[in-house]
Amino acid sequence: MPNLPSPDFPPADADYAARVRESFAQQAAMALIGAELVEVAPGRIAMTLAHSARVTQQHGFIHAGIVSTALDSACGYAAATLMPADAGVLTIEFKVNLLAPARGPLLRIEGRVTKAGRTISVADGQAWQPHPNRPGEDQLVATITATLMTITGRNDVRG
Amino acid sequence: MPNLPSPDFPPADADYAARVRESFAQQAAMALIGAELVEVAPGRIAMTLAHSARVTQQHGFIHAGIVSTALDSACGYAAATLMPADAGVLTIEFKVNLLAPARGPLLRIEGRVTKAGRTISVADGQAWQPHPNRPGEDQLVATITATLMTITGRNDVRG
Amino acid sequence: MPNLPSPDFPPADADYAARVRESFAQQAAMALIGAELVEVAPGRIAMTLAHSARVTQQHGFIHAGIVSTALDSACGYAAATLMPADAGVLTIEFKVNLLAPARGPLLRIEGRVTKAGRTISVADGQAWQPHPNRPGEDQLVATITATLMTITGRNDVRG
Amino acid sequence: MPNLPSPDFPPADADYAARVRESFAQQAAMALIGAELVEVAPGRIAMTLAHSARVTQQHGFIHAGIVSTALDSACGYAAATLMPADAGVLTIEFKVNLLAPARGPLLRIEGRVTKAGRTISVADGQAWQPHPNRPGEDQLVATITATLMTITGRNDVRG
Repeated sequence: MPNLPSPDFPPADADYAARVRESFAQQAAMALIGAELVEVAPGRIAMTLAHSARVTQQHGFIHAGIVSTALDSACGYAAATLMPADAGVLTIEFKVNLLAPARGPLLRIEGRVTKAGRTISVADGQAWQPHPNRPGEDQLVATITATLMTITGRNDVRG
Repeated sequence: MPNLPSPDFPPADADYAARVRESFAQQAAMALIGAELVEVAPGRIAMTLAHSARVTQQHGFIHAGIVSTALDSACGYAAATLMPADAGVLTIEFKVNLLAPARGPLLRIEGRVTKAGRTISVADGQAWQPHPNRPGEDQLVATITATLMTITGRNDVRG
Repeated sequence: MPNLPSPDFPPADADYAARVRESFAQQAAMALIGAELVEVAPGRIAMTLAHSARVTQQHGFIHAGIVSTALDSACGYAAATLMPADAGVLTIEFKVNLLAPARGPLLRIEGRVTKAGRTISVADGQAWQPHPNRPGEDQLVATITATLMTITGRNDVRG
Repeated sequence: MPNLPSPDFPPADADYAARVRESFAQQAAMALIGAELVEVAPGRIAMTLAHSARVTQQHGFIHAGIVSTALDSACGYAAATLMPADAGVLTIEFKVNLLAPARGPLLRIEGRVTKAGRTISVADGQAWQPHPNRPGEDQLVATITATLMTITGRNDVRG
């Protein structure tokens, strides 16, 4: 059985990666939670998210919402790589499943476009960490499906 | 047509509110994002989330993931108010719809139990802010549905 | 704490209810599963869904997907009541929580617009049945959140 | 970047496939909508769903809820392949994204376990059809993420 599609998307233009990196640098929330952008490709993004005491919940794991924040940005920027230079991207909704406690020390956060539409795009993503009991293996921490909207030439983005 | 149910839940015991407040204080992520717990009632929680530069996305609004982090905690603690003193609460999954840019200055974050089960509970929540164009009105910023699990006497919570 | 908003929506025009009833009658799937439209109001829909042997899963309850099919239509038509006469409505995504086995004999299916946008609308809905153990009470069977898109003047609705 | 995990799951026992086929045959709703079970493997299920006039919505495509019904069953049975012989499987919630109109003539419906837990499992699935404009290619119609619960030795499955 085939898995989720991994189409080879054409980038929107030659500057897509620079645009994504610049926008990411303007997301103060990414610095706040300790997320860094590590890969930008057409339709795909990878980030890291570091465990630190300040992003934890009551049991010392990274808060599910913080993992979700990184996953949401990964999906949004994955979609943005395929959008025109003057377009903005807006998350309409997302759904996250939490599969294992986020221990770190460093999560890999991936976002990938599943469907690139003119107005509506869908991206899926995963958060991974070193498996706590199986050396050399990765453990799936969380999955996301996000619905994104391309915004062009509108002032009020959700009118 | 009736709206979502608002049953009058009996609290788990007399100390439920103290337990929730203590646990909330241990969620470092809540302090990081600027969320405060303002109301605790059986099956219901209210928090505030303040806009500040450090929680923003690239357009200056509060990052959707940060709003979701507060909504997730509100749902988790709403469920926790109904659980035994020795139980833990775990978010299995949640889904968020983003309805308006989170401008602040102060969001009201609400979580409410829709179904309290022995193992699985479901909570719904909303994020509100003063409407930017209609003085005296509130604007719905986001909604959440979260599925929570009651954890008792297990070491590895997701085994 | 306020519950989900129940705004008084203005209908799109005088013929909205006739349009919705006509479209519903063209959804063959509604007749197949035993769903009937019982109320149409601006931003709100109510249907019934009858238990019958042919819509069951392996334990004799109505299949969760069948309940979801009725809930999806209820949300779509709730959104359609607020759309221009020449517009179509498209479900982009939905999420359903199943809270109790769907025993029937008759479920009440409700859909209500939470946010009516120019392009994107969000509707929430619930499925209810007579409580099997508490005479005179209703039991919440399932909840839905659906994201809908207004389609105007396009041939391929998902291009 | 890795895609969703495709672990090689050990089957619960030698009779898992027979159990799944027997249970599927008892889901009257599957026959009603025209779904057939075509593959059963540890952690994976494939079905077909045929377009017919009776499962359509107002534009002649298969109703999104009907596609979701097949996807829900595919996820549930994928999880069931890994469960003990005396266990039941219950869908707690699912989320579906609709990516293209379901034209048929025959959809392939796949479900695959993403995380197999003692109590909670998560499965993802896809619905595919022949691409209407690109001969020889498949088109992704819909995706699902479902959360399933293993039920053992309980009378009221959602108590």
